[in-house]
Amino acid sequence: MSTGNDELFAVRWVDAGEGGPAVEVLDQTLLPEHRRTVVCHHVATLAEAIRSLRVRGAPALGVAGAYGVALGALVDGDGEGAAATLTAQRPTAVNLGWGCRRVLAAGPDAATMLEAARRLDAENAAACEAMGRHGAALLGDHARVLTHCNTGTLACSGIGSAFGVVRTAFEAGKLAHLWVDETRPLLQGARLTAYEASVLDIPHSLVVDAAAGALFAQGRVDAVLVGADRIAVNGDTANKLGTATLAVLAHHHDVAFYVVAPTSTIDPAAVEGAAIEIEHRDADEVRTAVGKAVLAPPATPVWNPAFDVTPAELITAIVTERGVVRPPFGAGLAAVLAG
Amino acid sequence: MSTGNDELFAVRWVDAGEGGPAVEVLDQTLLPEHRRTVVCHHVATLAEAIRSLRVRGAPALGVAGAYGVALGALVDGDGEGAAATLTAQRPTAVNLGWGCRRVLAAGPDAATMLEAARRLDAENAAACEAMGRHGAALLGDHARVLTHCNTGTLACSGIGSAFGVVRTAFEAGKLAHLWVDETRPLLQGARLTAYEASVLDIPHSLVVDAAAGALFAQGRVDAVLVGADRIAVNGDTANKLGTATLAVLAHHHDVAFYVVAPTSTIDPAAVEGAAIEIEHRDADEVRTAVGKAVLAPPATPVWNPAFDVTPAELITAIVTERGVVRPPFGAGLAAVLAG
Repeated sequence: MSTGNDELFAVRWVDAGEGGPAVEVLDQTLLPEHRRTVVCHHVATLAEAIRSLRVRGAPALGVAGAYGVALGALVDGDGEGAAATLTAQRPTAVNLGWGCRRVLAAGPDAATMLEAARRLDAENAAACEAMGRHGAALLGDHARVLTHCNTGTLACSGIGSAFGVVRTAFEAGKLAHLWVDETRPLLQGARLTAYEASVLDIPHSLVVDAAAGALFAQGRVDAVLVGADRIAVNGDTANKLGTATLAVLAHHHDVAFYVVAPTSTIDPAAVEGAAIEIEHRDADEVRTAVGKAVLAPPATPVWNPAFDVTPAELITAIVTERGVVRPPFGAGLAAVLAG
Repeated sequence: MSTGNDELFAVRWVDAGEGGPAVEVLDQTLLPEHRRTVVCHHVATLAEAIRSLRVRGAPALGVAGAYGVALGALVDGDGEGAAATLTAQRPTAVNLGWGCRRVLAAGPDAATMLEAARRLDAENAAACEAMGRHGAALLGDHARVLTHCNTGTLACSGIGSAFGVVRTAFEAGKLAHLWVDETRPLLQGARLTAYEASVLDIPHSLVVDAAAGALFAQGRVDAVLVGADRIAVNGDTANKLGTATLAVLAHHHDVAFYVVAPTSTIDPAAVEGAAIEIEHRDADEVRTAVGKAVLAPPATPVWNPAFDVTPAELITAIVTERGVVRPPFGAGLAAVLAG
């Protein structure tokens, strides 16, 4: 899906390039040093791009899977084989399998499958834009926003979730400044969000994650906008490690703290945050800088959870594509889930 | 000064090695990948080590300056020249000039100057040990401590300030675990504190700075111990960027927050934190990982203050070599300053 800037996309359909139809991916593993796109004329090329995290982020993987199945149907006459191959690359990525299955169900005709993939892409983009509108309406003029991790086009296709709100506010002339947390250990803020802000000419500054306390104390932040990995039915929110730190700082300094995420992020099976299992990741993520530099003694023990849980009472509002939910969150989240 | 572990030191006097008397420095620029010492038989070698940050940290620079002047007097018969050369390498490092001047004042005899340098070294070590004792007495049994930056032997000579408390508690069997903040952007926690903890067999885990919120929320921290760059007379404390974030988290989660610093850190000219000028540092510190890896687009704007200010009301106590000061800090700090 075009996001109004040709340079910035995660995954898109190419109708009539050299070599016929293709799925094009912007290679996120090379950012920010190099900008290279991978044009996938075959399912195997796209499968490699998914496995190697050249395209990542739940919503973007949904779109990639959808177009990948349509590509398989068009090129090899085998949508089912494409769905099996693509899903197998990231078995725990729920959106990837979901995107594949939805397009497969529109078959067996390749043209209807491509149509279904385009529709999924458009719906995803529309959801991002709706979150952007709902969220931007919450911000005052000249807003100075702090964000964490990457929640823009590169993660979401469309304009993004939390970053989509930033972008919408910027385009409406309401954004004074964006503070970009670098987001250690994997540095999605430094590598990806700073890149997106730069491509879009959004006024921004990169900060180390530990700088947040000083930013708040100096009155430089009007709102925090973050995405979500999973939201419990009481509003407790699992998101990238570091989010809970920002929520406590925002609370202490009386600054608004907004979670921006599609309703698909709400997990009806999770009664509260404690029910959300947190993945612990490899120690070398912390001992190195994205594998490029050694930062600590090689045998250093490391504690490296991927996510933390922000308690509902520290969240000002949850912004979904179907509207803004305010505390107490139970009833509001149930209402947006019901549609 | 020996700290009870021959491998771990910042700077020390070598009486009768090959090539005569020398000042030996553990090269901190190569840690943690390589451990190399520089044996300085000449003032010029030590000057280079100071300029290149092979030895750094205010108290350690005081000791380095002191021995350097004694070396100049012994080897070249020119303590004054040595003092001028050494002080010029880091003109804003107050302790460096102070150490040089104090030894120079004991001259002109080289033997009395060396004696003065040894005395300064011993006094510094004794101050660290006193802070260690006073601080360790504040901790409960099985304490799980979170620390930030590097405040151990490598920064302080002796056993350190905040880290000296950790070490004293560990040796008394009171320390269950040390959480080591990596301390972006310059990663003194990952590079230096994790190294010290490893050499001393202190049970520890390295975490990214943004992990603190999750550590507190999960009840894994009993006390925060940090050093100080400068303390205002009302107790407001300037320290490495990230300290203020920890203070807010500790306050929110009802966890003790201790500042550990020698009385020389108290600035009678600073009425409150707002009077302390904060140095802003180079953007490439944030755009790279200690110069070894590119993390962000090359032109990314960066906000990179070296320090933040923790307000006195978030500090449980300030531990000095002369005892523990509790709030309200004004009278207590004046009392320890008066001696």
